[in-house]
Amino acid sequence: MQISAFQQHIRDRYFETDSARGPAGTFLWFSEEVGELAQAIGERERGDGDQANLEEEFADVLAWLTTLANITGVDLEAAINRKYFENGGPAGTK
Amino acid sequence: MQISAFQQHIRDRYFETDSARGPAGTFLWFSEEVGELAQAIGERERGDGDQANLEEEFADVLAWLTTLANITGVDLEAAINRKYFENGGPAGTK
Repeated sequence: MQISAFQQHIRDRYFETDSARGPAGTFLWFSEEVGELAQAIGERERGDGDQANLEEEFADVLAWLTTLANITGVDLEAAINRKYFENGGPAGTK
Repeated sequence: MQISAFQQHIRDRYFETDSARGPAGTFLWFSEEVGELAQAIGERERGDGDQANLEEEFADVLAWLTTLANITGVDLEAAINRKYFENGGPAGTK
């Protein structure tokens, strides 16, 4: 799936409610999902992980990041191209 | 760009150092990038935003999220498909 197609899917499906919530409220939701991802990674580190749940938390963080991009006017695929592909991408470790 | 191709690019380029750093250390780096994104969104909300910088912060958060997926065995594109496309995706607001 193209990054741009996923961003469009999230826009088509959720833009109206996401836009009404606004960047601050949406960042709070995003942060909750980041917390859930942290918990899932921590459980995995302690040998008590659930890979299906971990996978779902990654999907949720990416979806909410995409939502934030939609309501702040950012094209994620263009952003990735500019930072990680044009001119060979960043030197060193990112 | 395919989500899977971006994940492979990050893997090809950075997996060795990312893997050596491990999930906890990498989550810390990811969190720093999330903080930078929060700052860029906050500046935009206060009317003092720099859209190019905001775009770059989104790219960095997505790159570090992808790194975390690589070192915890998660296929981001499969995760997105399972959560947001199979069976029509989640009901309601995500």
